[in-house]
Amino acid sequence: MKGNLLILQSGGPTAVINSSCCGIIHKALENREQIKGIYGAVNGILGVLNEVMVDLTKEDPATLDLLKQTPSSALGSCRYKLTEKDYQRALSVLEAYNIRYCFFIGGNDTMDTANKVSNIAREHSYKLRIIGVPKTVDNDIVGTDHCPGYPSVARWLAIAVRDAGLDTKAIYTTDPVKIIETMGRDSGWITASTALARDESGDPPHLIYLPERPFEEDRFIKDVKGVYNRLGYVVITVSEGLKDKKGVTLVESSAKVDVDTFGHAQRGGVADYLCNLIKDRLEIKARFDKPGTIQRVSMMCASEVDTEEAYQVGRVAVEQALQGKSGYMITLERFPSDEYKYTTGLMQLEHVANLKKEIPNEFINDDSNDVTEEFLEWARPLIKPGLPEYARLKRVPVKKKL
Amino acid sequence: MKGNLLILQSGGPTAVINSSCCGIIHKALENREQIKGIYGAVNGILGVLNEVMVDLTKEDPATLDLLKQTPSSALGSCRYKLTEKDYQRALSVLEAYNIRYCFFIGGNDTMDTANKVSNIAREHSYKLRIIGVPKTVDNDIVGTDHCPGYPSVARWLAIAVRDAGLDTKAIYTTDPVKIIETMGRDSGWITASTALARDESGDPPHLIYLPERPFEEDRFIKDVKGVYNRLGYVVITVSEGLKDKKGVTLVESSAKVDVDTFGHAQRGGVADYLCNLIKDRLEIKARFDKPGTIQRVSMMCASEVDTEEAYQVGRVAVEQALQGKSGYMITLERFPSDEYKYTTGLMQLEHVANLKKEIPNEFINDDSNDVTEEFLEWARPLIKPGLPEYARLKRVPVKKKL
Repeated sequence: MKGNLLILQSGGPTAVINSSCCGIIHKALENREQIKGIYGAVNGILGVLNEVMVDLTKEDPATLDLLKQTPSSALGSCRYKLTEKDYQRALSVLEAYNIRYCFFIGGNDTMDTANKVSNIAREHSYKLRIIGVPKTVDNDIVGTDHCPGYPSVARWLAIAVRDAGLDTKAIYTTDPVKIIETMGRDSGWITASTALARDESGDPPHLIYLPERPFEEDRFIKDVKGVYNRLGYVVITVSEGLKDKKGVTLVESSAKVDVDTFGHAQRGGVADYLCNLIKDRLEIKARFDKPGTIQRVSMMCASEVDTEEAYQVGRVAVEQALQGKSGYMITLERFPSDEYKYTTGLMQLEHVANLKKEIPNEFINDDSNDVTEEFLEWARPLIKPGLPEYARLKRVPVKKKL
Repeated sequence: MKGNLLILQSGGPTAVINSSCCGIIHKALENREQIKGIYGAVNGILGVLNEVMVDLTKEDPATLDLLKQTPSSALGSCRYKLTEKDYQRALSVLEAYNIRYCFFIGGNDTMDTANKVSNIAREHSYKLRIIGVPKTVDNDIVGTDHCPGYPSVARWLAIAVRDAGLDTKAIYTTDPVKIIETMGRDSGWITASTALARDESGDPPHLIYLPERPFEEDRFIKDVKGVYNRLGYVVITVSEGLKDKKGVTLVESSAKVDVDTFGHAQRGGVADYLCNLIKDRLEIKARFDKPGTIQRVSMMCASEVDTEEAYQVGRVAVEQALQGKSGYMITLERFPSDEYKYTTGLMQLEHVANLKKEIPNEFINDDSNDVTEEFLEWARPLIKPGLPEYARLKRVPVKKKL
């Protein structure tokens, strides 16, 4: 089928969403017989609705190559839930521009949008091949071993938490407790990855709290006290979306107590809240880091596995569309071998849309304050080339004289 | 003079404090005629007072080499103000261990401690050569062009703010305002370095607020609104220590209003406070990142200039001590040439101790919401090898059809 191709980037940016975009463009450029125009929608589906699209064949080849290692969404992104009317409008635009190949790079919501566009095109007998390209730091898309974007945030956090842990270990006499708040409102994949910071047992992070388990204040305080008494310092990683037994987030539940005089939402995130809890109940000084969007989009220490997989997933998406496939998302499948190897697969968009992959029980420890070795074995190959090597002094004591 | 050598690391860790330590050890190992034992005090001066020292000649040479690229303080750090009695005790310990060469790696307070130890040794006619090795991300030590530690935090922030800026630019339709809170309670050097994130005019950060200028709420809101109306998104960097006209920090002054029901300190930092201010007054959603200690200690993108200078400053410190110098801090001096070149100098500890180098007026713009080109020219050579190259699409529009 001959026609034009359109790329849409959606949702929160990542380090490698442009790598997928680069893969799509490269593969498309190799198939100009069928693929005529190569367009990018500016700000995802909004670019379609508003007819704001750019011609990617007008870019320098060197710029397109460089996309593979450029973080964030070069075409602009959006978070927008389409109405029935919007879907009609989207179809009209796709028809008007003779778009026959359409690639949605995004997460769960994006796959839902892609699925609905696919359906409406079929209902109207408009020939359109739609492929979803998975992307999310949250790693919560079903049907794929992991999502492009996740390995890079995992590597970033592993390195950052190791560094911040060394910082706290060095300055524990004045600042003995450090809490690092990670992204991941509903699922703990991102927070879990901080366990990759450890070189040896006893290394930070010492405690990891995920939103999959109800947060219990008393147990938390007991955990912190235990590590503090044992090591003299404590490094804790927490998900921004920690919830209590009733499913209310800690930030929400604290906001009900700490009435803000202006009526706006209580300030401070979960890490900030927990720092104050530690100060109140244990009388130990605690500080927090909240790297926020820096963690999700940073190219500082992107995973090589991630950059390459994201690129290949883009290429495979075009390949599958050219072979006639439509209404699928590309998945990553892991070979059951010692060395990490992957292949790609296909999953119907309707089986992916709006679902969320939870972190499995066997990846969380019984005390709900750490991950398991199974998780680490699953995650370690993803953050290639791993962590830089650091010196670890033996610290042979000089014999006391006085 | 024959005797033992002692290294002390003090204050907040940095990416390169161990590089200086490595330089000292390497140079000492080349001079075993005079330097017998090479000791490290565990947790700075506390290690002296408590007689907790380690024998660095017992470490593998490969481990010592690796120190050059290992962040944080490998010997442990402290923040401790000595009493008169402590100084007497410190001298007794140094004498007991026949310490004749003593190297204090640290900031302003550490140079004060070094100076006082130097004085008490002289008063007691104990022959001791003391040299200060500058280290602080705050860059506020007088007498030196810049401080080891600063170039690396500057490079880290330049890259992180550029990435977070691309993130905000991509997702501006839902999250149009991003505030990034940097370290730097009293001086704006760290916050200023975020300007190095810009490749072209108009790039983030769009507004930079330093603690050297009183923060004015109305002007801030006007600034933000101006950028928002022009570009549709705003990236702002702020120092954690922003103060109002009366010299009260924004966090303190907001705490007076938002009374916390538990009586503990109001949560949330300055960025969090300003996000709420923007939501209240402009009704625009704003989010913040607070990388905290990750920024100061991260080896992710340490400056090559910094790692090398920190190492050389350590070597030169030993060289000067061997030549008989004592009571000095090593400084970095910049040659007035086109290409960046530096040499080292000496500054008497008493002229450094407890002083703070302010960011000069000509480095801050007239509107107090940005740095000047002079600052950028001064800072750019320090963050070698600069920023990774990213793709920047031309975004040639596809002609509208509907």
